[in-house]
Amino acid sequence: MYKYIVLKNRPEGKPSKDDFEIKKMEKPQPGEGEILLKALYVSVDPYLRGRMRDEKSYIPPFKLNEPIESMVIAQVEESQNENFSQGDYVSGMLDWKEYQLSDGKNLNKVKKDDAPLTAHLGILGLTGITAYLGLEKIGKLKEGETLLVSGAAGAVGSVVGQIGKIKGCKVVGIAGSDEKIRNITEKFNFDEGINYKTTDNMQEEIKKACPDGVDVYFDNVGGEILDAAITNMNKFGRVVNCGAIALYNAEERPTGPRLETFLIKKSLLMQGFTVRDYAEDFQSVVKQLSQWLREDKLTYEETIVEGFEEIPQAFLNLFEGKNQGKMVVKV
Amino acid sequence: MYKYIVLKNRPEGKPSKDDFEIKKMEKPQPGEGEILLKALYVSVDPYLRGRMRDEKSYIPPFKLNEPIESMVIAQVEESQNENFSQGDYVSGMLDWKEYQLSDGKNLNKVKKDDAPLTAHLGILGLTGITAYLGLEKIGKLKEGETLLVSGAAGAVGSVVGQIGKIKGCKVVGIAGSDEKIRNITEKFNFDEGINYKTTDNMQEEIKKACPDGVDVYFDNVGGEILDAAITNMNKFGRVVNCGAIALYNAEERPTGPRLETFLIKKSLLMQGFTVRDYAEDFQSVVKQLSQWLREDKLTYEETIVEGFEEIPQAFLNLFEGKNQGKMVVKV
Repeated sequence: MYKYIVLKNRPEGKPSKDDFEIKKMEKPQPGEGEILLKALYVSVDPYLRGRMRDEKSYIPPFKLNEPIESMVIAQVEESQNENFSQGDYVSGMLDWKEYQLSDGKNLNKVKKDDAPLTAHLGILGLTGITAYLGLEKIGKLKEGETLLVSGAAGAVGSVVGQIGKIKGCKVVGIAGSDEKIRNITEKFNFDEGINYKTTDNMQEEIKKACPDGVDVYFDNVGGEILDAAITNMNKFGRVVNCGAIALYNAEERPTGPRLETFLIKKSLLMQGFTVRDYAEDFQSVVKQLSQWLREDKLTYEETIVEGFEEIPQAFLNLFEGKNQGKMVVKV
Repeated sequence: MYKYIVLKNRPEGKPSKDDFEIKKMEKPQPGEGEILLKALYVSVDPYLRGRMRDEKSYIPPFKLNEPIESMVIAQVEESQNENFSQGDYVSGMLDWKEYQLSDGKNLNKVKKDDAPLTAHLGILGLTGITAYLGLEKIGKLKEGETLLVSGAAGAVGSVVGQIGKIKGCKVVGIAGSDEKIRNITEKFNFDEGINYKTTDNMQEEIKKACPDGVDVYFDNVGGEILDAAITNMNKFGRVVNCGAIALYNAEERPTGPRLETFLIKKSLLMQGFTVRDYAEDFQSVVKQLSQWLREDKLTYEETIVEGFEEIPQAFLNLFEGKNQGKMVVKV
């Protein structure tokens, strides 16, 4: 028997292990045109919290008592589909199942020698693409500008900062521990870092770190850090609203200072970014990211947790900031 | 002796007549290269409230005990400048003075027969240009979309709605009295209107009036109406943050629901709009607006108050919603 994981309850506030259930299943048999996939690596990401709510969003909510899905690297164990051979590696939106069938649609083949397999869940996957396209499509970052990044030690943030440096910008990161700050400045090439957990006045700290003001704020967290960033933006500044992890577990509608007067005074732009809106650009972006990776202009970190049944805990740990870079579960 | 008006105190909360002082002066004599201007019509606008605060914004604050300035239509009474003749009409950013000198820079000549003089303070002035460019540069309004406008009976809002109809859109306006609602639907061609003062649940009312959702929200008021609009936006919707009159008199930093999760979920754009950012487009826009005016595709209202010393009260009345369309003082 093999395992799979379903959403048992819609979490209220912070999710807990009780919201998930590990169930048992037989290994399925592929029919005509199908392939049998064995999961190797499962990506856990903050945005999945949104799909656990029963509300309309850019992707439909997970159904109760049905498997959760996320990006997964899998290997073809048996193929009845002419496009796939036994042993092929693929990435795609797949269920949290040790074994599953697929018709092969919406799967990408992945070569093992291009880069480590897990890179296709992170820097060469949606994470890296998000960083690149968020900066390009909304941030419109230009050489010499100042880029501020929250969640800077996270999977997306650490790539955003590195791309900012490649583009010749001053890059300041915000993260939640001194170790993370060391990491972003020493490993990811950020110019400066601010530990928001040990800072009383974020507005002042950002001002000190960005004496010329902020031109682009790449926001992965929302909430009070967004408020502090907004007050430091330059005229014509752009805010990439990529994530709001600070608010994802809120049960009441969170409140804060109204931002519209700041937008008007400084002709600021704020725009929600969802990588799925730009699917036609994915291929060319992955090519660019792969090249930078080969040239050692980009580096990445990942936190790899072992064991299929650890997926829920790995997901929960995202909200405790326990990951350095991309959080991945090795099955 | 002639009159001029200075800012006596920086208003706290809602401005009052005591914040202004009417002073007396001699009629000045133009020197070499100068012209003597007699003010005919003075524009009062909500954005002036911002300049009464001692804080950095897109234009510097007014100085205490110095004349306030706004858009004024004036006539040349005496000219020592070869570019102007006695009797010429001009529009420009001028002091609240019955008479003043100018070197002629940054003044536009205005022909009396093109349109009524006051039109150059409203529909053919910054007001009309704001409506046009806010929709074009940020709203990017397309035929068949749904346009929602707050402050719909105001100077900017009433032009926004009419342009929306010229562009083949469904247009819904929000205003603060049944009379204003009648006005926007009967006179300004809006499809529907919502009186926010008699509505308990703005979110629901907007939903009813915009069953296909809102593609562009042109916001002149900010605050709770913005919150209600945001929840009704379609994917890829655009919010033109043109004004926030609901917040201008606030002394404490106003708070409200955080909007970043809505931006992310629906890939929404919010952008502050300030007409001065687009000066290079003014001429072509005025040409287009003049043409529509001649073709009777556009109409406008104005509230004309008589008497130079009534300028402060006319300004105060803006915050009571006492104007229909552009508020102008006839000197």
